[in-house]
Amino acid sequence: MRRLVKRPTMKDVARAAGVSPMTVSRAVSGEPGVSPDTAARVEQAIRQLGYQRNDNARSLRQKDLRTSTIGLVVDDLANPFYALMARSVEDEAHRRGYLVLVGSTNDEPRREREVIAAFTARQVDGLILVPTNGGHGFLKQPMEGGTCVVCVDRPAKGLAVDTVTVDNRAGAERAVGHLLGHGHTRIAYLGDRFDIWTQRERHAGYLDALAAHGIPEDPALVRHELRSQSDAAAALAELRALPDPPTALFTTNDLITIGVMDGLGHPDPVALVGFDDFPLADRLSPPLSVVSQDPVALGATAANLLFSRIDGDTSPPRSVVLLTRLVVRGSGAGGGFRG
Amino acid sequence: MRRLVKRPTMKDVARAAGVSPMTVSRAVSGEPGVSPDTAARVEQAIRQLGYQRNDNARSLRQKDLRTSTIGLVVDDLANPFYALMARSVEDEAHRRGYLVLVGSTNDEPRREREVIAAFTARQVDGLILVPTNGGHGFLKQPMEGGTCVVCVDRPAKGLAVDTVTVDNRAGAERAVGHLLGHGHTRIAYLGDRFDIWTQRERHAGYLDALAAHGIPEDPALVRHELRSQSDAAAALAELRALPDPPTALFTTNDLITIGVMDGLGHPDPVALVGFDDFPLADRLSPPLSVVSQDPVALGATAANLLFSRIDGDTSPPRSVVLLTRLVVRGSGAGGGFRG
Repeated sequence: MRRLVKRPTMKDVARAAGVSPMTVSRAVSGEPGVSPDTAARVEQAIRQLGYQRNDNARSLRQKDLRTSTIGLVVDDLANPFYALMARSVEDEAHRRGYLVLVGSTNDEPRREREVIAAFTARQVDGLILVPTNGGHGFLKQPMEGGTCVVCVDRPAKGLAVDTVTVDNRAGAERAVGHLLGHGHTRIAYLGDRFDIWTQRERHAGYLDALAAHGIPEDPALVRHELRSQSDAAAALAELRALPDPPTALFTTNDLITIGVMDGLGHPDPVALVGFDDFPLADRLSPPLSVVSQDPVALGATAANLLFSRIDGDTSPPRSVVLLTRLVVRGSGAGGGFRG
Repeated sequence: MRRLVKRPTMKDVARAAGVSPMTVSRAVSGEPGVSPDTAARVEQAIRQLGYQRNDNARSLRQKDLRTSTIGLVVDDLANPFYALMARSVEDEAHRRGYLVLVGSTNDEPRREREVIAAFTARQVDGLILVPTNGGHGFLKQPMEGGTCVVCVDRPAKGLAVDTVTVDNRAGAERAVGHLLGHGHTRIAYLGDRFDIWTQRERHAGYLDALAAHGIPEDPALVRHELRSQSDAAAALAELRALPDPPTALFTTNDLITIGVMDGLGHPDPVALVGFDDFPLADRLSPPLSVVSQDPVALGATAANLLFSRIDGDTSPPRSVVLLTRLVVRGSGAGGGFRG
């Protein structure tokens, strides 16, 4: 289908801002007689429409070369955790008149590179990135060109940028400590791909808790690389078939927790604490104890850091760690709670 | 922060496609000696990078004025239903070398207009829209300019475009019929805003089921405008305080179902069927019976329609209805199931 490339005009801006084109012209040229409030509305309309002032507008600042678009690159947008984070980023962007391009990497470095190449080719002003474990040297060029980058959920190896994460290791240690506190000593670890930073951190927290109780790691109880609910259910079946099976489980993300829940009986003697909270987790059978993190706060914090960089903050990169919370509901006890 | 506007070059395209710049030049100019496979890879790289061929490339087709970007406008990206739909749209777009701008409307016509104005100003090739109940006359101009539009989840009043929905009315009738089949006659309706098309359809289905059993509507049992979990919990409390309270509930979206579940006892004599499925709904107490719709299929169907329009399909608008499924797990019986 043919299409005409139509750029937004000053008239479009005027309509969007609810003022006359003359007022837009005055605001753009910085002429007197425009109230700060009106100027702000015009500025917002210009950003929202992506209006490019023409050569007659002599007061063009460097700032106006911006596209007022940022890119958000997550592992999987269908995962409720990343969906909540994305909505939070979108709200922060919307408040500032910015748009958000969204892409999922599936945790594949190749798809990550493709998505980011497409975003930077569209001149995004900044990127909020849940990095894969791949290299990020390809970001050097766009960053030198002025594209700001903030990492969220995980740091990117060798990339010195603002990063927002949660205390994965301490959260996992607390979860496993809770199971140990209920007398469990054979505690299985059911985790996702070990090359994902958050997973390595959570595994380290699992080992910390065991070590604090003088319990050596039993490799027979550790399962990595669980990528789906069915992987998790299969791993649980294997663990239960051991001569000396676990009496408690630590699951390191919501997908794995769901898969494991599917394989538990009603009731079931095995205890369980998962990383990541659910709606209605207190109504599950058993009521599910979890390590809870706040994806909305992660997204908002990352967005605020990004916009301060876009606005010219050149201070050294920051690492912000948000705290997780152990929410105890019952499943951490084990021993045949009522179904 | 200052930034240079750097457009992707033919060299960038060559790198992304894994071929020499000379091959890119040949492919772009349509010269012989380029295999169809290589040409396709170059074409994909051009789309992904948003590469604009320069004036020397004489073979420019109208198609090349595309931005290879589509906009997706949903009610709320944080809602798992729309997140699954968004990921599905993103996957379809990615396969074709397209990017996705995402925006949430909060079901507010004003925010919908803002988001769409910003998208069309960025020259999106098409829009997939979960429309609000507001007017959509503002879409006339971009559509005349060649922007393709597809509605999903709901139709837009007065907008003759491809639309993908589910059989909301029949699904609701089946849900309420299930409750009637268990002997319930006092069945409450707990719904979201009545100006949302899907909600009106589901209410109509509720009335259809009652009418089929010769039961007149009791306005005391009908609650609209429930916008949050706490709204739903409060409505449930009011309903239970009635002299003649309901023995069964029909909840019309996942948020309302969650709010109502929070207000039910363990066990509780009241029966419940909700619209929209959950992970672990079978492990809830009570195991939750639902009307299940498929957001991934909705998103993929809408995306396929949109891309066929972008590729030049000018046939009359289509209305595609996907079927819902009643998933019976136990909560529809009522009468004090074991908690």
